Amino acid sequence: MSVRTSSIIEHDHYSSIPDLIAKKRDGYELDPNEIKQFISGLTNGDVQDCHVGAMLMAMFIQGMSEREICSMTMSMRDSGERLQWPKYRGSVVDKHSTGGIGDKISIPLAPALAACHLKVPMMAGRGLGITGGTLDKLESMPGYQTQLKDEQITELISTVGCGIFSQSLELNPADRYLYAIRDVTATVPHHALIVSSILSKKSIEDLDALVLDVKYGASAFMKTTEQAEILAEWLYKVSELLGMKTCCYVTEMNNPIGFCIGNAIEIEESLDLMKYKINRSKDLEELVCEQGGRLLLLINKVQTIEQGREMIRETFQNGSALEKFRDMIIAQGVSKTIAEQLISNDDKIVNSILKLAHKHHHALASQTGFIQSIDSYKLGTIVQRLGGGRLKSTAKIDHSIGIRLLKHVGDEIQENEPWALLYANDNAANHYPKFLDDFHTAVQISSTPVAPLQRIHKILS
Amino acid sequence: MSVRTSSIIEHDHYSSIPDLIAKKRDGYELDPNEIKQFISGLTNGDVQDCHVGAMLMAMFIQGMSEREICSMTMSMRDSGERLQWPKYRGSVVDKHSTGGIGDKISIPLAPALAACHLKVPMMAGRGLGITGGTLDKLESMPGYQTQLKDEQITELISTVGCGIFSQSLELNPADRYLYAIRDVTATVPHHALIVSSILSKKSIEDLDALVLDVKYGASAFMKTTEQAEILAEWLYKVSELLGMKTCCYVTEMNNPIGFCIGNAIEIEESLDLMKYKINRSKDLEELVCEQGGRLLLLINKVQTIEQGREMIRETFQNGSALEKFRDMIIAQGVSKTIAEQLISNDDKIVNSILKLAHKHHHALASQTGFIQSIDSYKLGTIVQRLGGGRLKSTAKIDHSIGIRLLKHVGDEIQENEPWALLYANDNAANHYPKFLDDFHTAVQISSTPVAPLQRIHKILS
Repeated sequence: MSVRTSSIIEHDHYSSIPDLIAKKRDGYELDPNEIKQFISGLTNGDVQDCHVGAMLMAMFIQGMSEREICSMTMSMRDSGERLQWPKYRGSVVDKHSTGGIGDKISIPLAPALAACHLKVPMMAGRGLGITGGTLDKLESMPGYQTQLKDEQITELISTVGCGIFSQSLELNPADRYLYAIRDVTATVPHHALIVSSILSKKSIEDLDALVLDVKYGASAFMKTTEQAEILAEWLYKVSELLGMKTCCYVTEMNNPIGFCIGNAIEIEESLDLMKYKINRSKDLEELVCEQGGRLLLLINKVQTIEQGREMIRETFQNGSALEKFRDMIIAQGVSKTIAEQLISNDDKIVNSILKLAHKHHHALASQTGFIQSIDSYKLGTIVQRLGGGRLKSTAKIDHSIGIRLLKHVGDEIQENEPWALLYANDNAANHYPKFLDDFHTAVQISSTPVAPLQRIHKILS
Repeated sequence: MSVRTSSIIEHDHYSSIPDLIAKKRDGYELDPNEIKQFISGLTNGDVQDCHVGAMLMAMFIQGMSEREICSMTMSMRDSGERLQWPKYRGSVVDKHSTGGIGDKISIPLAPALAACHLKVPMMAGRGLGITGGTLDKLESMPGYQTQLKDEQITELISTVGCGIFSQSLELNPADRYLYAIRDVTATVPHHALIVSSILSKKSIEDLDALVLDVKYGASAFMKTTEQAEILAEWLYKVSELLGMKTCCYVTEMNNPIGFCIGNAIEIEESLDLMKYKINRSKDLEELVCEQGGRLLLLINKVQTIEQGREMIRETFQNGSALEKFRDMIIAQGVSKTIAEQLISNDDKIVNSILKLAHKHHHALASQTGFIQSIDSYKLGTIVQRLGGGRLKSTAKIDHSIGIRLLKHVGDEIQENEPWALLYANDNAANHYPKFLDDFHTAVQISSTPVAPLQRIHKILS
């Protein structure tokens, strides 16, 4: 990227919004005051939809410098209210993922960190497209409230230590305005605009440390490792400049994370990890321990990443993460009875609350061999199209739809042995006629042994 | 300009508006159906302001191919009603200028062409910035109506042969929408967008031949000959592709055209040419005869440009253009009495109708020598700022403000001899404190002889 750093236009005096657009149009760098003027205009009425469309396109095509991305992120952050945690300085942390299939890492991670006495004010999002949303998954639990008032958030962080809730309307109005326009003007996929959107949201949480997980692969936003690495480097750089200790992971997202894909079913899988069940997903466990351990290391709670991983794992082994989870969901509206039932070891009771769809379809192996890959894009699409995800941002979702993998990459399998189970409703074929075809063909089987999956491609720290 | 001609995105099926924006964002050529879909969206509600801002910026930065500019022009033309002249096929003509100071060519030209039995359905514009507008000048005549109904236009062209009126709201709504957004999103100065705007307006007139006058210089939209030549070549090429026989001039616009700058005063100067007065502006006469003669040549009414020029000149010499002008302004609302008075040779009566401002200021030569140049930018600015032009598109203008040059480039002048006369109101200094300074310094005098002005830099035909 090259951004011209001197301008032929004189900008000593106050510029008009069209002047700012012209400057970016011609590839010049906007100075921090100019960025601030534009972002302020989003909320004070100086900037109109047509200005936003033109400016975003100029930013997209001409690129943005590090200084511009930082200024934009800070101006967006300052466009509304901010959370503040002076009492807990040094121990406020969060993580962000660019979104994947079966990515429920946040759900066991937040209570695990709280069990380590950290503070985790996690503002999460909803699913759009084939990637699920943390808030949608949590709403599988009857009563769970995602919209909290400021005083509720303060109370939750002070007593439980963690909360997973939605961004309120008072926070970051500039990002909401920009995102709504980016969504319809083909200006979403640009690292500068992605970085400022993600980090303006995260920096509102007043964090000491942040772990970022940039996914690449067929079912990720970034298709290649190169794209993901560029985004990761920018996220890392700007996050550090904003004063957050940061670690950025680049991780594989061709195969689903863990065994479960869906909403209720991912809560079940998260509970299984927090219950430290024997059949928990090791893939999920390793990712949660790695990212949680990294946050402990970033704030100097531990001396090595190995110590960090073990401290997180202990919260699952000793049940302290599960207790924090119970306290969090009760504080966020789930009844005590339901919360206690969810954390019990009685699978029948848990199932009676989470209520997976009753129609089961098995996907069978077409040959004997080893699982080489599981097509997360196809599986994510099936869940979405059967009602478990959204095609429009306003759509309601069906929490009961889900897929359970019975095998992982590297596992042996016999011909006609089931490798996955789909929970669907009777009318599934009406919504997505070829769901069974896609379900059965979403696996690659090799006749020779296959190494287990390496999720982590790169770590920037 | 380079536009990619194949696309990695599959566009066999119907694309969404964001798809089209993404294609242009990435530098690919939009096919004619895609351009049509976008332009139709401007009037059918599919396209919103933010889309327009983003698409215009993508077009501006990535450029547009010849095919795209043609498709866009035609789609804009077809966005509303069109004039149609099947009865007069072969003799419907018009001219367009990119705007200059003292540029009243259209006013004597339309009646001169009508006197040669051509049809001139001239849709003209208003002034914005320092360049005057033909409609504003014509409204100096009490009663002159610029907004005509379709049947009035038909009647006017059928009986008189020429009319100068505004574009009605039913014509070219796409251009009005696009222009309003271009105006505030820094997307005005791009040849592709200028060409499609100008030619979509002109092609609505259902012309056989069109003369285009692209001006360059300090007070023109295009500052350099290079910029003007690029625009002229595009205008010429696309206009011919749209089926209009076209000639495109590139002309100098550092010095004002003729002797007069303003509204009422330019009507006076136009009348002087049509009256073939001894003190008429030769500069104006040559430009009118050249462009009118060219139109006669384009539609094969004459065999050579010299014959064309002489045929136009004759309409001034024999008074037939003046009669057509009288008939036109009567048909457009001026009373017969006033129209007859305006075409009379009694200057006092003419002045009593056109009413120039009563306060006179003379600009005096600071040295003896030869007029080397007259700063049309400064003079245009004075007239505009004293009320003769607009700073906002909704502002009213004062038709009585004007400047009369007493000398032309190349003329001899003595120290302290006046070279120009300004008609202003008493409160001129309130509106523009430094108008007298600018007025006196708007001339360059050389101590050695200066050649007369060569207006025409290039002709594309």
